[in-house]
Amino acid sequence: MTRIDIPEGSPFGLANLPYGVFSTPGTAPRVGVRVADSVVDLAATLGDDVFARPSLNAFMAQGRARWEEVRSRVTELVSGDVPDDAVHPVGEATLHLPVEIADYVDFYASEHHASNLGRLFRPNAEPLMPNWKHLPVGYHGRSGTVVVSGTDIVRPSGQRKAPDEDAPTFGECRRLDIEAELGFLVGTGSELGSPVSCDEFADRVFGAVLVNDWSARDIQAWEYVPLGPFLGKSFATSISPWVVPILALEAARVPTPVQDPEPLPYLRESEPWGLDIDLSVVWNGQEVTRPPYREMYWSPAQMLAHLTVNGASSRTGDLYASGTISGPAKEQRGAFIELTWGGKEPVEVAGEQRTFLQDGDEVVISATAPGADGGRIGFGEVAGRILPAKG
Amino acid sequence: MTRIDIPEGSPFGLANLPYGVFSTPGTAPRVGVRVADSVVDLAATLGDDVFARPSLNAFMAQGRARWEEVRSRVTELVSGDVPDDAVHPVGEATLHLPVEIADYVDFYASEHHASNLGRLFRPNAEPLMPNWKHLPVGYHGRSGTVVVSGTDIVRPSGQRKAPDEDAPTFGECRRLDIEAELGFLVGTGSELGSPVSCDEFADRVFGAVLVNDWSARDIQAWEYVPLGPFLGKSFATSISPWVVPILALEAARVPTPVQDPEPLPYLRESEPWGLDIDLSVVWNGQEVTRPPYREMYWSPAQMLAHLTVNGASSRTGDLYASGTISGPAKEQRGAFIELTWGGKEPVEVAGEQRTFLQDGDEVVISATAPGADGGRIGFGEVAGRILPAKG
Repeated sequence: MTRIDIPEGSPFGLANLPYGVFSTPGTAPRVGVRVADSVVDLAATLGDDVFARPSLNAFMAQGRARWEEVRSRVTELVSGDVPDDAVHPVGEATLHLPVEIADYVDFYASEHHASNLGRLFRPNAEPLMPNWKHLPVGYHGRSGTVVVSGTDIVRPSGQRKAPDEDAPTFGECRRLDIEAELGFLVGTGSELGSPVSCDEFADRVFGAVLVNDWSARDIQAWEYVPLGPFLGKSFATSISPWVVPILALEAARVPTPVQDPEPLPYLRESEPWGLDIDLSVVWNGQEVTRPPYREMYWSPAQMLAHLTVNGASSRTGDLYASGTISGPAKEQRGAFIELTWGGKEPVEVAGEQRTFLQDGDEVVISATAPGADGGRIGFGEVAGRILPAKG
Repeated sequence: MTRIDIPEGSPFGLANLPYGVFSTPGTAPRVGVRVADSVVDLAATLGDDVFARPSLNAFMAQGRARWEEVRSRVTELVSGDVPDDAVHPVGEATLHLPVEIADYVDFYASEHHASNLGRLFRPNAEPLMPNWKHLPVGYHGRSGTVVVSGTDIVRPSGQRKAPDEDAPTFGECRRLDIEAELGFLVGTGSELGSPVSCDEFADRVFGAVLVNDWSARDIQAWEYVPLGPFLGKSFATSISPWVVPILALEAARVPTPVQDPEPLPYLRESEPWGLDIDLSVVWNGQEVTRPPYREMYWSPAQMLAHLTVNGASSRTGDLYASGTISGPAKEQRGAFIELTWGGKEPVEVAGEQRTFLQDGDEVVISATAPGADGGRIGFGEVAGRILPAKG
């Protein structure tokens, strides 16, 4: 038997207990829980078939009462002696995409990001569209290209046209960017024709992950009118392998910024679901920005209520992301197009002047939040390296 | 044993043989083929487990050589005596969603439709955006709300704001519309980082269905800037239950309209994949429009090449639709917002002056195409009735 050592201040202590899907050499992917620097095999310890599967979906579909019960059992389990063969050093485990993604929706919930992008994409117009403060603007993305952290990102090719060019040309993306976001995973879905209220958020949403919504800005700028982003986003979206339970985020809850005008009734929360999460974006080893999630205008509960208010159903495995997280300060902007103001104001990255991503670059996004024990819980990281475009 | 009678001129003769998923009382959904007015149970006759499943996905994933082989075997089977218990009158079968939808993409490939919508939504600007003739504009829709023909459509509610109103209000959609489209189902997917060429279309795409992309125009008009349609479309998308094999559409192939400017090389086809398909839209029993698919500017082969040119993977079960099919004439427009010019020019429907859909209305879209035997093959229909909004 093994007693897991949890160092003081570990971001993966008992206040966190995120779930993931892992494998070890010669074994099939299955559900585990991260504790300090270990992965605890739930298929081997809890004796329930839902943990022997290659995704969290079956467990997520069981609902909040079951999520609470398993969290209690896991807390008890990892506080005592655990069978040796159920504990693996996290460095020896392969981490897989934790969830089979159903639909993927990306919101646009940061006022600072939406204003900055508005100024950059539509310089002669009001930065925020008239609808922006009335509803969380969002759109559907490609669920089939959601990949787990560590997956290499091949530079996409496509059509792009600079404003001073007469016609588009085909070639590799010249303005490859990141978007630092938080993503929410639906556990218990809802039926067609049955909107979900803001207050159902914590009963339906299982947990949160970090998201890097890789963006080809030149492809996007040419294609996106009038039906929105398509190939500029659909080549890859990376998520972190550890799903932090919503149950672990209670201590991180804060009010959203003041919403003025007051939202329509279906978007009003009785309890706030703003989240006090600090992100960090590291580019080639150097931290370049620290986006603050607490600045997000719309809460994830409001996003889910909006997403379903027309009667759209939701499913176990639905992923919806916040959109780029940007705070008011320059060093809080969650996309390089904002940080470098459209490429016009390079930043220093490991001694070089840089704007967009170059081949070989690596970006690592991490985050922490207050935990129930007074310490901080961690989201781990979502990392990706840029490979050259395919000839 | 039963010999299936195929009347002269049946749209479901040997030149068609579309696949679907059906059940009969007390039996599980499984794969069948439509012949005249019968459904032939392939699970019971071909002795292959892929047909005993509740979707076509497993069969679709087997690839074109297998699709050809099964089509030959089915042709032979239904030309002779079939076991009695493997033949069911189509009227006694329940037809299910034939495919488990992976990602759903909706294109915007009719020049007439895009021009009409441009004039209606942006009256002070050029009707076509500068990108429109360079690439097939598209966006991702919600795959979880794709439903089979016959599913009732509950009128959605949401935010809408008329141009003369100061602020949005919440309420039921007042401008509920249809979009008559053709949808294509990917059989054999492609890997991340590997674009699909136009010439791979018929190896990768298994078949086609009719699509009604229900649209809430008032919700859409308020929400869609800058990231595209979201709740105005995501409440329901209906598809026909019979998947017409691409193998059955060879006789329907025609060149697309002249594409000027010439598309970039990745969008050039060596063989044309325009399709000579005639649609019919029946509103409360009266045909109101006959959209001609042959007028579509972009072909489905070009759509798939564009969808993957950035390296996005595709999966078995991906559905991509053409966008509304509209011809140059008024009575060829595939959406009521065009047919009634934004509601300003009502049409007579069964003796009433009508603009958008009212509760209780039923819309039935059907289509036929030339078949290999010189007759016409049928797509069957996609039908839906509007139920009142939920209080």
